[in-house]
Amino acid sequence: MRIVVALGGNALLQRGEKPDAATQRANVTLAAAALAPLAEKHQLIITHGNGPQVGVLALESANDTRLSAPYPFDTLGAETQGMIGYWLLQALQNALPGRQVAALLGQTLVSADDPAFDNPTKFVGEVYDEITAATLAADRGWTVKPDGLHWRRVVPSPKPQHLVESRLIRLLLANEAVVVCAGGGGVPVIRNTDGKLEGVEAVIDKDLTAAMLADVLEADALLILTDVPNVMRDFGTVGASPIAHTTPYELRNTQFPPGSMGPKIEAACRFVETTGTMAAIGQLVDAEKILGGTAGTIITPGAAWPNPRGL
Amino acid sequence: MRIVVALGGNALLQRGEKPDAATQRANVTLAAAALAPLAEKHQLIITHGNGPQVGVLALESANDTRLSAPYPFDTLGAETQGMIGYWLLQALQNALPGRQVAALLGQTLVSADDPAFDNPTKFVGEVYDEITAATLAADRGWTVKPDGLHWRRVVPSPKPQHLVESRLIRLLLANEAVVVCAGGGGVPVIRNTDGKLEGVEAVIDKDLTAAMLADVLEADALLILTDVPNVMRDFGTVGASPIAHTTPYELRNTQFPPGSMGPKIEAACRFVETTGTMAAIGQLVDAEKILGGTAGTIITPGAAWPNPRGL
Repeated sequence: MRIVVALGGNALLQRGEKPDAATQRANVTLAAAALAPLAEKHQLIITHGNGPQVGVLALESANDTRLSAPYPFDTLGAETQGMIGYWLLQALQNALPGRQVAALLGQTLVSADDPAFDNPTKFVGEVYDEITAATLAADRGWTVKPDGLHWRRVVPSPKPQHLVESRLIRLLLANEAVVVCAGGGGVPVIRNTDGKLEGVEAVIDKDLTAAMLADVLEADALLILTDVPNVMRDFGTVGASPIAHTTPYELRNTQFPPGSMGPKIEAACRFVETTGTMAAIGQLVDAEKILGGTAGTIITPGAAWPNPRGL
Repeated sequence: MRIVVALGGNALLQRGEKPDAATQRANVTLAAAALAPLAEKHQLIITHGNGPQVGVLALESANDTRLSAPYPFDTLGAETQGMIGYWLLQALQNALPGRQVAALLGQTLVSADDPAFDNPTKFVGEVYDEITAATLAADRGWTVKPDGLHWRRVVPSPKPQHLVESRLIRLLLANEAVVVCAGGGGVPVIRNTDGKLEGVEAVIDKDLTAAMLADVLEADALLILTDVPNVMRDFGTVGASPIAHTTPYELRNTQFPPGSMGPKIEAACRFVETTGTMAAIGQLVDAEKILGGTAGTIITPGAAWPNPRGL
């Protein structure tokens, strides 16, 4: 089988941890150990989040304009693909001796007409008071918006349309390489009026990119791995219970509290609806069990189980 | 033919330019235009320097320890592979429509016993006075050395032994992809006593890595591209003259002034001596002419010309 795994940001950095390199590498080593059994049996494509990491690099780049003008988000995203990609590459090589592992830089094409460019919504970087935020907006061309009691920079989060390097991933998979690609949702690019690729100031949701990539690569399953074991029914109430198996229909007719689960559910539903195969949401350490159907929340097109591809 | 190109740091950033992203991308666009004609006729592997870029990221990372502890040089090098690799990837895709281009993260294996680890010699980052340098050395575990009137941090520069991802490069080349890899000489790694790959605090000379890679990949030519048109005979004298064609024997028996030409000549000689084929040193804009034998300094095993592979 061909499996696309989307690693949540907390696979690299758990809540409350400082983003030191050593901390993240220790977490990446655990992630590689959880994923190695999947790679031994299946074609595996791994993508990962980069929220905290790109935030740190953006602040560092803006900190000292004596060194350089602040770098745009396409370039910062590419830096995180290099950094996190290298950590994953090495950890997977160590966990899978004798196996080829490829970490490929990947660009995600978005539409220049995506309405997200007119309405940036994705908070990035530090919080400021209103006056500081307004000054930074004027000085640096940022868009800023209120975030609770503070103000923060926002950037557009357009929908992923295509991964520019998908053919190369297919080639690498066909030759038994484990592939790390499209970290941070992929470096955001548009095709400009000359038909050329061009980076844009945006961040792309990594779960939506993983779903798009799983679709393009005709994957048999999309695994969205995070730090909670299941999607919960009636989350936050005394009657809360883990969902073992569900459908896009049920998920789309259930209210979930705002937060990071929303994009994961949307990505999983989209993949299942488009391809008629399965997606799952669960915790990283359960990766092998989730694929075996004994952990996580499994999402299939209908209530029938096992899913159409016989998992 | 299969050709390995080593792009000098000034292909990305010319002397005196500030390392803003926009400046470097404009330079990378010119580099891609110079390299595109080679990619149309040959298998092409492109590696690149990262000196100024990794210096900036190292300073930024050390600037604000509230954000994170300063990142080690393997991770910083991987960040520059992401950043510069992305710029090259996109510029080459735009210069070569319809062609697949792959930017692959690459680790260069060095020996844990390399004597360079006992005698760091490669200056990195800013200059300090002696007292500040001593304080930083004590606080951060740096080795510092005098550099002219100032003090600077030094890191080891071990010899490249192998590129961990060489098989994947071969696969990509065989499938007509242009490959960008091993930027900054490759991310420096050792194999530790458990047989695992492990990043080290070092920087690897990118021209030596390019020569090693050209050897491993059985390339037909190694092109070391920089901002001077030729290696000069009697450089710095009134009788200085450009060398059009030479041999490792002649180069090794000629005195060259200290500076960046030394490693280029060493890398070119090593490749020619080992493989019996050709290397060349010249300027980026002449890339196509150099390969045609009408520009640059061509280095072949003996005085016979054209070289043994009929270039």
